[in-house]
Amino acid sequence: MQEIVNCAAYHKGRRIANIDISKINEVLDHPDQFLWLGLHEPSEETLERFQKEFNLHDLAIEDAHNAHQRPKLERYGDTLFIVLRTAQKNEAHQLVEFGETHFFVGSHFLVTIRHGSSKSYADVRNRCESTPELLRKGQGFALYAIMDSIVDQYFPVVEALEEELQNIEEKIFNEKPTRQTTEHIYQLKRQLLDVKRAVSPMIDISNRLMRFDTALISEDTQPYFRDIYDHALRINEMVDHVRELLNTALEANFSLISISQSDVSRKFAGWAAILAVPTMVAGFYGMNFDFMPELRWHYGYPVVVICTVSLCVLIYVMFRRSGWL
Amino acid sequence: MQEIVNCAAYHKGRRIANIDISKINEVLDHPDQFLWLGLHEPSEETLERFQKEFNLHDLAIEDAHNAHQRPKLERYGDTLFIVLRTAQKNEAHQLVEFGETHFFVGSHFLVTIRHGSSKSYADVRNRCESTPELLRKGQGFALYAIMDSIVDQYFPVVEALEEELQNIEEKIFNEKPTRQTTEHIYQLKRQLLDVKRAVSPMIDISNRLMRFDTALISEDTQPYFRDIYDHALRINEMVDHVRELLNTALEANFSLISISQSDVSRKFAGWAAILAVPTMVAGFYGMNFDFMPELRWHYGYPVVVICTVSLCVLIYVMFRRSGWL
Amino acid sequence: MQEIVNCAAYHKGRRIANIDISKINEVLDHPDQFLWLGLHEPSEETLERFQKEFNLHDLAIEDAHNAHQRPKLERYGDTLFIVLRTAQKNEAHQLVEFGETHFFVGSHFLVTIRHGSSKSYADVRNRCESTPELLRKGQGFALYAIMDSIVDQYFPVVEALEEELQNIEEKIFNEKPTRQTTEHIYQLKRQLLDVKRAVSPMIDISNRLMRFDTALISEDTQPYFRDIYDHALRINEMVDHVRELLNTALEANFSLISISQSDVSRKFAGWAAILAVPTMVAGFYGMNFDFMPELRWHYGYPVVVICTVSLCVLIYVMFRRSGWL
Amino acid sequence: MQEIVNCAAYHKGRRIANIDISKINEVLDHPDQFLWLGLHEPSEETLERFQKEFNLHDLAIEDAHNAHQRPKLERYGDTLFIVLRTAQKNEAHQLVEFGETHFFVGSHFLVTIRHGSSKSYADVRNRCESTPELLRKGQGFALYAIMDSIVDQYFPVVEALEEELQNIEEKIFNEKPTRQTTEHIYQLKRQLLDVKRAVSPMIDISNRLMRFDTALISEDTQPYFRDIYDHALRINEMVDHVRELLNTALEANFSLISISQSDVSRKFAGWAAILAVPTMVAGFYGMNFDFMPELRWHYGYPVVVICTVSLCVLIYVMFRRSGWL
Amino acid sequence: MQEIVNCAAYHKGRRIANIDISKINEVLDHPDQFLWLGLHEPSEETLERFQKEFNLHDLAIEDAHNAHQRPKLERYGDTLFIVLRTAQKNEAHQLVEFGETHFFVGSHFLVTIRHGSSKSYADVRNRCESTPELLRKGQGFALYAIMDSIVDQYFPVVEALEEELQNIEEKIFNEKPTRQTTEHIYQLKRQLLDVKRAVSPMIDISNRLMRFDTALISEDTQPYFRDIYDHALRINEMVDHVRELLNTALEANFSLISISQSDVSRKFAGWAAILAVPTMVAGFYGMNFDFMPELRWHYGYPVVVICTVSLCVLIYVMFRRSGWL
Repeated sequence: MQEIVNCAAYHKGRRIANIDISKINEVLDHPDQFLWLGLHEPSEETLERFQKEFNLHDLAIEDAHNAHQRPKLERYGDTLFIVLRTAQKNEAHQLVEFGETHFFVGSHFLVTIRHGSSKSYADVRNRCESTPELLRKGQGFALYAIMDSIVDQYFPVVEALEEELQNIEEKIFNEKPTRQTTEHIYQLKRQLLDVKRAVSPMIDISNRLMRFDTALISEDTQPYFRDIYDHALRINEMVDHVRELLNTALEANFSLISISQSDVSRKFAGWAAILAVPTMVAGFYGMNFDFMPELRWHYGYPVVVICTVSLCVLIYVMFRRSGWL
Repeated sequence: MQEIVNCAAYHKGRRIANIDISKINEVLDHPDQFLWLGLHEPSEETLERFQKEFNLHDLAIEDAHNAHQRPKLERYGDTLFIVLRTAQKNEAHQLVEFGETHFFVGSHFLVTIRHGSSKSYADVRNRCESTPELLRKGQGFALYAIMDSIVDQYFPVVEALEEELQNIEEKIFNEKPTRQTTEHIYQLKRQLLDVKRAVSPMIDISNRLMRFDTALISEDTQPYFRDIYDHALRINEMVDHVRELLNTALEANFSLISISQSDVSRKFAGWAAILAVPTMVAGFYGMNFDFMPELRWHYGYPVVVICTVSLCVLIYVMFRRSGWL
Repeated sequence: MQEIVNCAAYHKGRRIANIDISKINEVLDHPDQFLWLGLHEPSEETLERFQKEFNLHDLAIEDAHNAHQRPKLERYGDTLFIVLRTAQKNEAHQLVEFGETHFFVGSHFLVTIRHGSSKSYADVRNRCESTPELLRKGQGFALYAIMDSIVDQYFPVVEALEEELQNIEEKIFNEKPTRQTTEHIYQLKRQLLDVKRAVSPMIDISNRLMRFDTALISEDTQPYFRDIYDHALRINEMVDHVRELLNTALEANFSLISISQSDVSRKFAGWAAILAVPTMVAGFYGMNFDFMPELRWHYGYPVVVICTVSLCVLIYVMFRRSGWL
Repeated sequence: MQEIVNCAAYHKGRRIANIDISKINEVLDHPDQFLWLGLHEPSEETLERFQKEFNLHDLAIEDAHNAHQRPKLERYGDTLFIVLRTAQKNEAHQLVEFGETHFFVGSHFLVTIRHGSSKSYADVRNRCESTPELLRKGQGFALYAIMDSIVDQYFPVVEALEEELQNIEEKIFNEKPTRQTTEHIYQLKRQLLDVKRAVSPMIDISNRLMRFDTALISEDTQPYFRDIYDHALRINEMVDHVRELLNTALEANFSLISISQSDVSRKFAGWAAILAVPTMVAGFYGMNFDFMPELRWHYGYPVVVICTVSLCVLIYVMFRRSGWL
Repeated sequence: MQEIVNCAAYHKGRRIANIDISKINEVLDHPDQFLWLGLHEPSEETLERFQKEFNLHDLAIEDAHNAHQRPKLERYGDTLFIVLRTAQKNEAHQLVEFGETHFFVGSHFLVTIRHGSSKSYADVRNRCESTPELLRKGQGFALYAIMDSIVDQYFPVVEALEEELQNIEEKIFNEKPTRQTTEHIYQLKRQLLDVKRAVSPMIDISNRLMRFDTALISEDTQPYFRDIYDHALRINEMVDHVRELLNTALEANFSLISISQSDVSRKFAGWAAILAVPTMVAGFYGMNFDFMPELRWHYGYPVVVICTVSLCVLIYVMFRRSGWL
């Protein structure tokens, strides 16, 4: 994939032209225009070239080049630098895959830099271009549009985790406890922590964006960031909800393991008691005393067998009734 | 059920007329009047029509159309947008059912939008109309009246959950531990989390309403929102109380499972010891030594049987006394 | 018990007269006087009569009539409405009994309303009247005196709970684990939560009273509320202390249950091993082989018995030494 | 021990004279002097005498007479009242012993009141007197010197608790689980909670002293209170550290109890299996069938014995290899 | 190693000379210069000499001499005193080793004092000297450079701990539970707590440095401290992440111990049941009744043996199918 995915100028919300890098300055100086630049895993040289054009800070450029930043919003003079984490459900391996998108927002430009696994923002751009009356609010609205699409990607991810919790509940309460269930719980916990780590800073970031007193984001764009704030809060709450239930599930699982172990012990004890009877009777009539009149009776053997079996059945029924077996 | 449940104008607290939608403007312009509009799961078109009348924000309308928002209060210019969750105990399935009510509060109107399972607000409206001296405080008081009825619906729900906790306690401490009790604890925990999630944002919402410096809610209506704040706090506390007890109950349940397992083991060990005696004795007199004088005695057999039984009884009594059995 | 327990006017800290309700107005208008009114579970009519005299808010009167409020402090115009929970140790049933006291504090009056099980405040009143130099600080000091007696009632309650914790510790570490101990822990936890719920809002209430910039509570009375604040903090800390220890006790109890179960298993295994020896030996000499020379020896039987018993004793001693039995 | 331990006047950091109580006023009026008064469990009369001299508040005097206050700092007009808890390791009984020291700090005096088990402050006084250039900073520095010595007494106490944790770890991981270890963990937890309760309010107290805008503590003395703040923070952190490890130790202990129980069960099962073989074989050859050719063989008996023993050895080796035994 | 590792003057970011201690004053007075002094475990005398030169506070010097301070930032007049903890992975013993570095930052100097195991800062100095355009920002930038290298040393340490967690997971889910795994978990927890204790105060320290309104750190250096802040936050998050997973791993480990114990019990019970059959049969045919026709049959013995074995196999297959064995 090429490094520079998109580089276009917008005039009053309408795309006017794809811009050559050498002509960026003209757009930046025009009061009604802004530049929207999309990069994908850019090389250090590319970044340095744009650094000069947009007058970006060294530290921000360094962060923008290395992925694996934590989500954050930093202000360098007139420029905002924002890092967000994107998430996607990897259908094949049943795992959540994270990527990163970095933003530079300046007085007449928006730069987005994608790292790792994440969808292209082409359709977000198309959607924006189809509503020029909104996009004319400026680069702040373009920022909102992408952030909104990033946050909304978390809903299917969290819903998939909620489904996994339901699978686990199903297994815990309807099947017998297994090592797999315990490992499953652990893996779900790990994924929840990862999602939480990616989402919870967004609450703070969108909160700051919706209150910032800056010319970068026009006043009528700020309610839109409240929308993102609200979605980030909701995802966060969903994750906390699953986590708290998962903790209870872990403990419930544990109780059920103990109960099933207790059941095994009780059943074992019950059957051992039933089987102890014939063994003991047989032992007695295996004694070699000279004078054991029963041994001489003609029907001694069948009588003893029948009595023993009856006794066993009786004990079995008693145990059954008392709920022991 | 029709979409527009109610649409009436109020003059100094008295209902003057059902209003046709085309005449809404007249009411909004009149200083002593306000409009009370009740909708039930409105279509997108209906919402758009009212959006123009009341000059509502796009994002709020979008939220108002989709249910499954988290409870929140948002201010768009002169209008407040409020989302609350309603709760009802579903008697049949023993589950809590949640619905949603959205509010738009403007300078001369109140719009309520009901989603999902929730009672009609007809009787709230009737009660308000029967106290015109209060309702003349304006649309803020009407908002209070409905919010109050929503919050008060949580009391029977939480009391039902407290009763369920008592059932669980009863089962834990008086019956033997079962898988069902553990699952019951888990389901109660889940319901508590759901109620908590619905109620706890109301604390913040009512707190903000009772402090807001806005013309929308007249100053003498604000103490009423403190009342709602107080009720929301109380429900929240009740839920936390049940939760904390439930956690302890889960652990107590766990201890009792272990104790009962320990009891099984001990009883089993005790009976095994008692039964081991006759088995061993019988084994000894089953040996085929040529010279075992007891075997030749005439009363050897009954003596051995009696001794063995006595020994078993003796061991049983000893175990009983020491509390082992 | 009558509804109106006490209704007296105080002039510069000295009780001047029991006042008839119709003459309340005279006291309220006198700059150096205040009225102290004590009610006990008043009817709705009584409350309404006083509501007019003292000009109290509808919502406060509604709360004052219903018990089961959470402790709180609310300001309605010039009047404070305070709800506190009282606690007493019920000696007979070993339970904490809660009552409620509500206060209205106005510019020249203090109204106290008792609900449920709580002691009369007659002796608090007497004590106040015996120090007129303090009581002349006004109705704020009278409020302090009653709040102080309410908070101090919690000390014996919490000390009783601390004693119960000691009983539980005694049982856990010195006796064998029982279902009763587990239930005892649970009940103590429940009582602690109840006390906590009643006490912790008092911290906030007394904190606000000691900082309030109001004419209702004279400046030299405010340090007294810091005293209540300090006591409420201390009770709260004691409750938290017992709770944290109780949680650890629950876990320790759990460990000890497991250890004692482990002991049972080990003892059982040990005795099973010892008893397995004679059973096996007897089984061998019960075989019917034609050529088993030992069976023919004259002293075979006693020799085998002696060897077997010796072997058992030897195993027993070995197990004993290794700490297995 | 006498009530008045020390009563001396200091002029520009140098002790000038032991002062008779009647002459206290002279010192208090002198701008460059301050009075340092040390009391030990004073009677009510003594306290009342000084109350008049120093013009102290009733509530503070009441607190100063009763020990068992929680650590706190209270301001009464121009006077500070401070309560701290002292700690000492009781070598004999391996327990932490707590005492209390109360302080009154006024514009030209410092009163210290010791309660319960605590060391005399004679050597702190001596150390202060040996650095008059520091002590001339006033009564604030004297306060610092004593508070510093109180806080530093906690270090050996907490280090002793850390050592106890190490003993517990040693026992948990290297010895078999016992009831004693569990009780030991519980007692350590209790001591940690006590120390925490005594230390954590000091953080707030010293923080307030280092920021107070008051003439009582000169500006160049305030960095010294930051030193105390820093030490209190450190002790607090050490206690939290031990607590968190102790919680993990409790859980680890629990795991190990389960593992060792599991080991017992597995060993028992293994040996039961091994012993079941000869018992079964012997049982078979104890059957009384007429036609069992093996019984007639001349070497039947030794062959069966050898085969059985070999089989047992084989099973034993197999179990050993698989790690079962 | 010598005490004074480095003592150099910098003019506009360029090292001009190694300075003799007697000439320090000249550098401090020059507006465009600053002094960078590096000490390693200095003696008390050395510290006192520099104390006079740089006019440092007694308490700070006392702290700087004693290691084992908690990380902190303290301001004494115009000088900042900073304590940080350094960390290194000790490859040999698989343990984290902590050291300490103290800083004095004044208007024209930076003093670094290393204690315990930590790398020399020679290469940090070299790197700084290679970018004089950055180093000319003053001693604030030099402070940043060292703090940055200290914080970055934590990344490999925390990554090693993450690897250890993976080892533990591997053991828990793929091997059978052992005492070693439990102890391993405990030791990892201890290391995490140590790292946490060292890192978390850095968040606050760097946060304060990036906001401080002081001439000591020039305004264009402050974004650099935000970089450190960001890294400290990230390390902190990584530690919390490992801790939370470790707690879940401890519980999962515990569940698996119970499951494997349950498996042992079940298997044992199953085999006991299978072995009980031949024992019982043999016992029956070992009875000495005169009239037991089967005993007389010619093929009685093989038939019984075959039936018994078949029955055992049947039970075994049944158990296998039901998942019991």
